[in-house]
Amino acid sequence: MTRIIIDAMGGDYAPKQQVLGSVAALNKDKDLYLILCGDETQIKAELAEAGSYDESRLEIVHTTEVITMEEVPTKAVKTKKDSSTVVAFRLLKEGKADGLVSSGSTGAVLTAGVLILGRIKGVSRPGLCPVIPNHRGTNTMICDCGANLECKPINLVHFALMASAYAETAGRQNPKVGLLNNGTEDHKGLPLHQEVNALLKKIDCINYAGNIEGRDIMYGDVDVVVCDGFTGNIATKSIEGCGKAVGAIMTREYKRNLWAKLRAAISMGIIKRIKGGLDYEACGGAAFLGLNKMVVKAHGNSRARGFAVCINQAAKAVRGQLVEKIKASVDANAELVSENLNKEE
Amino acid sequence: MTRIIIDAMGGDYAPKQQVLGSVAALNKDKDLYLILCGDETQIKAELAEAGSYDESRLEIVHTTEVITMEEVPTKAVKTKKDSSTVVAFRLLKEGKADGLVSSGSTGAVLTAGVLILGRIKGVSRPGLCPVIPNHRGTNTMICDCGANLECKPINLVHFALMASAYAETAGRQNPKVGLLNNGTEDHKGLPLHQEVNALLKKIDCINYAGNIEGRDIMYGDVDVVVCDGFTGNIATKSIEGCGKAVGAIMTREYKRNLWAKLRAAISMGIIKRIKGGLDYEACGGAAFLGLNKMVVKAHGNSRARGFAVCINQAAKAVRGQLVEKIKASVDANAELVSENLNKEE
Repeated sequence: MTRIIIDAMGGDYAPKQQVLGSVAALNKDKDLYLILCGDETQIKAELAEAGSYDESRLEIVHTTEVITMEEVPTKAVKTKKDSSTVVAFRLLKEGKADGLVSSGSTGAVLTAGVLILGRIKGVSRPGLCPVIPNHRGTNTMICDCGANLECKPINLVHFALMASAYAETAGRQNPKVGLLNNGTEDHKGLPLHQEVNALLKKIDCINYAGNIEGRDIMYGDVDVVVCDGFTGNIATKSIEGCGKAVGAIMTREYKRNLWAKLRAAISMGIIKRIKGGLDYEACGGAAFLGLNKMVVKAHGNSRARGFAVCINQAAKAVRGQLVEKIKASVDANAELVSENLNKEE
Repeated sequence: MTRIIIDAMGGDYAPKQQVLGSVAALNKDKDLYLILCGDETQIKAELAEAGSYDESRLEIVHTTEVITMEEVPTKAVKTKKDSSTVVAFRLLKEGKADGLVSSGSTGAVLTAGVLILGRIKGVSRPGLCPVIPNHRGTNTMICDCGANLECKPINLVHFALMASAYAETAGRQNPKVGLLNNGTEDHKGLPLHQEVNALLKKIDCINYAGNIEGRDIMYGDVDVVVCDGFTGNIATKSIEGCGKAVGAIMTREYKRNLWAKLRAAISMGIIKRIKGGLDYEACGGAAFLGLNKMVVKAHGNSRARGFAVCINQAAKAVRGQLVEKIKASVDANAELVSENLNKEE
């Protein structure tokens, strides 16, 4: 049985959508056991309306506090000891489960992950790794996307090792890894990129494809994109804005007049498929790689369907022994990395 | 008469598309005078097939060399003295014209711009400022997009002043300027962004809207986005890749089967309008701001239509006295900037 802890109180539509998503995940995956942390009364009320599910595979741990989006993460994690987020991470740390899903404050999840759950030995900077759709109809992992604004070479090397292992457990065979840069040639980028590019070429256990450009995130053929957190944040949000702009332009054009509306009605199935090809929610949440257990940060505005995908994502990584694989990969390359880097932490 | 110099030999489809674009621009704008630098025989052959135009407003300056995309820019600019690019910049410097358009190697244009034409006094780092479409149906300027990978605060402040003036000459009233960051709050970003954000708030002559996020480039309401060249390169190329991915998904879905193809045929006008809303070529090229004259870098794969837009773009900036406005703006804020920056160049 794969045991996943759910932070049921974090997110714009919590706990309703988190409870509905949990029930959907339980019904789909018979080998899943869920522990929901949150207000017991509210969770039970939502469960009562959620339809049937196997009650023997769902447990509630009552908590009395909630960390909001507005709070300073470090302060909130240290003071709100009975918040759903803190309790969820504590139970995870204690071995009550193998993975965790939260759609709460990203800052709180990152902080609780490092302070309560702890990092994998040798990994000084865990990385946030969201999954975005691409033109091939698969998806691309991009690490880091905001956990570490400024990075040293060793951090980027770890992101490459960790996200490559993650892509494998998600079903990608021999995933291609690219370093996000301002051009594909070896001399491109800042000293950081030049150093990382040279080192990644020496690492045997990943399928390194060299430098890639921004356009390759959605239109290239790599499975994993490696970058510092500032760049990753800008890139993913730029893509998000482009997707939204395209949606707005489509809506405007298809509503321009009656004739356009009629054609929109005729093409509705196709329009839905196009939008489906760009569906962030269907891709799942962001894995927080480099911690001692599998943690998935779901979107703050997750609905049941997207939240269920995140639970499945966490379960799949647990079954694929992602954390063990990351440990082995970081260990196996520790010597090579330390020998080749000038500026270690 | 507004005089613009054309580097007729740079670009994937040179000189044909550059000549056709020049003729189109001449026919549209009766107050335009063009000087085409390039191989006279080739240019005349293309002109012979380009249809009628006012020959008294077009001049050819014969050159014998071409700088290719593969060459190292600094070396090429220094050694190929009779290349179309170098001659074009030399004539511009000598006062033969007020602006220049080239679809040649970006590196060569940046190098020739700085080495031959020269920078505006006080501006140590000119910035490359492309124009991208947005959801409002207007477009957004983003500076810098790759001329300066690493920047100091003063560089970003200059980008803001210069691109704001540019947006005004392009017809935007009181353009809104945003600083690209990983969040909107004042504490977000690296020390670079925090320092620039604080300083831009003190500058009266621009309409500063504060920090913006990647999604605001295409889906927000700012006219000008300020960032370092590495970040700008990643953001614009990420958006480009997203646009291409959407196009690929649309094509795939509309060709899925006969019924889809039929619906595509019915909706063709709308599909074209949607693609038109995302049309990079119609937006024009990238202005290279901070030089002593107006320079537009057209896309390397420019066709006649896009190249003509770039000529119009250059002429408009010349008529709006962009260079004089940038000089005045940089001068007027020099004291404020030097008083408030810790780390000056």
